[in-house]
Amino acid sequence: MSRILIIYESDYGNTKKMAEAVASGAESVPGTIVSLKQAGEVTADDMTKSDGVIIGTPVHMGSMDHRIKTFIDTVCGGLWMENKMVGKVGAVFATGSGYGGGGGGAELTLLSLLNNLAELGMVLVPLPKNTKGYEYGGLQWGPCGRSAGLHMEQDGIKDESLTAACHHGANVARIAATLKGTAFFA
Amino acid sequence: MSRILIIYESDYGNTKKMAEAVASGAESVPGTIVSLKQAGEVTADDMTKSDGVIIGTPVHMGSMDHRIKTFIDTVCGGLWMENKMVGKVGAVFATGSGYGGGGGGAELTLLSLLNNLAELGMVLVPLPKNTKGYEYGGLQWGPCGRSAGLHMEQDGIKDESLTAACHHGANVARIAATLKGTAFFA
Amino acid sequence: MSRILIIYESDYGNTKKMAEAVASGAESVPGTIVSLKQAGEVTADDMTKSDGVIIGTPVHMGSMDHRIKTFIDTVCGGLWMENKMVGKVGAVFATGSGYGGGGGGAELTLLSLLNNLAELGMVLVPLPKNTKGYEYGGLQWGPCGRSAGLHMEQDGIKDESLTAACHHGANVARIAATLKGTAFFA
Amino acid sequence: MSRILIIYESDYGNTKKMAEAVASGAESVPGTIVSLKQAGEVTADDMTKSDGVIIGTPVHMGSMDHRIKTFIDTVCGGLWMENKMVGKVGAVFATGSGYGGGGGGAELTLLSLLNNLAELGMVLVPLPKNTKGYEYGGLQWGPCGRSAGLHMEQDGIKDESLTAACHHGANVARIAATLKGTAFFA
Repeated sequence: MSRILIIYESDYGNTKKMAEAVASGAESVPGTIVSLKQAGEVTADDMTKSDGVIIGTPVHMGSMDHRIKTFIDTVCGGLWMENKMVGKVGAVFATGSGYGGGGGGAELTLLSLLNNLAELGMVLVPLPKNTKGYEYGGLQWGPCGRSAGLHMEQDGIKDESLTAACHHGANVARIAATLKGTAFFA
Repeated sequence: MSRILIIYESDYGNTKKMAEAVASGAESVPGTIVSLKQAGEVTADDMTKSDGVIIGTPVHMGSMDHRIKTFIDTVCGGLWMENKMVGKVGAVFATGSGYGGGGGGAELTLLSLLNNLAELGMVLVPLPKNTKGYEYGGLQWGPCGRSAGLHMEQDGIKDESLTAACHHGANVARIAATLKGTAFFA
Repeated sequence: MSRILIIYESDYGNTKKMAEAVASGAESVPGTIVSLKQAGEVTADDMTKSDGVIIGTPVHMGSMDHRIKTFIDTVCGGLWMENKMVGKVGAVFATGSGYGGGGGGAELTLLSLLNNLAELGMVLVPLPKNTKGYEYGGLQWGPCGRSAGLHMEQDGIKDESLTAACHHGANVARIAATLKGTAFFA
Repeated sequence: MSRILIIYESDYGNTKKMAEAVASGAESVPGTIVSLKQAGEVTADDMTKSDGVIIGTPVHMGSMDHRIKTFIDTVCGGLWMENKMVGKVGAVFATGSGYGGGGGGAELTLLSLLNNLAELGMVLVPLPKNTKGYEYGGLQWGPCGRSAGLHMEQDGIKDESLTAACHHGANVARIAATLKGTAFFA
């Protein structure tokens, strides 16, 4: 039995949709208990009892939503201080309107979130390029949901992004189950 | 006459001290009007009437303080949308307790802030390595104030960091004065 | 009279095409002398006599081409040591096959190049989002040429990317001409 | 039985010393076969038969040594194309002269290497802050060896950095042994 916690914030429901796809992937792995929460609701206890944590955010100005950062500073800061998350598994995803054919700032957004997880001492799960949906909805750091076309037409998250997100959830659940309960870091 | 706006948040007064050093440097450049504000007090109007903006933050978990990110999302987001800051001058600085001899996360913190300024279309001013104080208090992206020693002894911001910060403020003020009032981006 | 040096490497001619577009933009600014060179041909003297330098690279595994890095290490390392490039103007662009709807690694590639320029103490010019061609071919850090579609179909660099690249060259030339000949860093 | 491949380049022997410390840590884990090679000697076959890969580099201008990048482009590019490294374990370390009290560019150097490993689809192992030696020789992304003091006095790699490096090697070996032989990514 392993526990996966998926944390997100959403402006227009797009990141929520991605979070639900990640959750459905994690749930597809037998023996996994999945919890899906908005960042503002997550407690330190939610974090410490999880074996894997996946955080998703809208892209705002090339970095994570401020509600996610508030969660990182206020809830994760203490966990960092006490080394409570060391050796757990972490992963990320992001959703952007896609302005800018070069990715619209998604890459650094994913990276800044991963940075927070690295500070916690978590093992990081990337998104391999042979994942289904990657060619539309992926980056090496995690799934990206583009909620708009190149000209800002709001056509919503594409199925390919949700497919990549679903696989990402399952990948993390499998790795968390395997790494669970052993002390790798000394 | 050019206007430099310095924006910061501070936990224990260290980033405030760095911000004041940056301000003193900017003020030393004749014809510069300097404004020093906490992020929560800065309005869109403060931003648009500035010729240069310098943002400083404590390092929290390898990225900027959440109060800074809240300012970026809520005040700068609209300015980004309307291209109101394009061609102004931007720069950054950070303060950390210094845990981790490799920089304690200061580099990615500075970078995530610069990323926000790049999104706004601002010309970015680095910190050259021949700046006084750099060998103790600098990185290519801007001045770093280490508020603690390697073993977390809280010995406060060092003079070298304040010296680098002061020069950074003056550098930005000079470049902002020179670039002011011309449309470089077309 | 100001001098702009454009440095690139190219695998299949796409980055070369982008470099030529950047050059044409720089040349459109009166009083600008433009030099376009492959990285392997650039000397320290080429660098020091330039007022602005723009570097472009194919995206390889999420970072710059190794020939560009060889140039950085072998030619720029000495310039860094002696502070020879401080206060000049720098900018970047990249070209990728575009695999990965999230940008295919272009963002970190641009950033790693800008990092080298920041180490040299150069003032950095971003690509504002209201630049023509940005919605297809841009990122905040510089123009991106996608040489393939989402499914790796090799359809070449799009006109929008070349348009953004051309404007980028002109923007840098204008800023370099304005900043030229003054000591901003002290 | 699991195989750990440690890849490095070295200018003055400092990164070599760090690589040997990483190797000694990996060797301390029963059932681990360790191979230590300079980047120029590593073949695609060396990579595919490894369960974990740890890459170390000197910091040059804020990014990896060009010999490492040449290895990434020429050997790893093909492995990326064919998804040959997906699900293996990856980690990094760096060595710098330490100029710049903010870390001297080590953070982005480590990150650019990790980026290459993420592109390959490898599970990434950070350095938890409670690792011995971290307070002097660590960053969240991996161990950092500072080969000089703040004023560029060449006093060599410190024991604390070697201690952190040794633990890093052992951590990666343990995680690679546990993840070996199972398909986590689908």
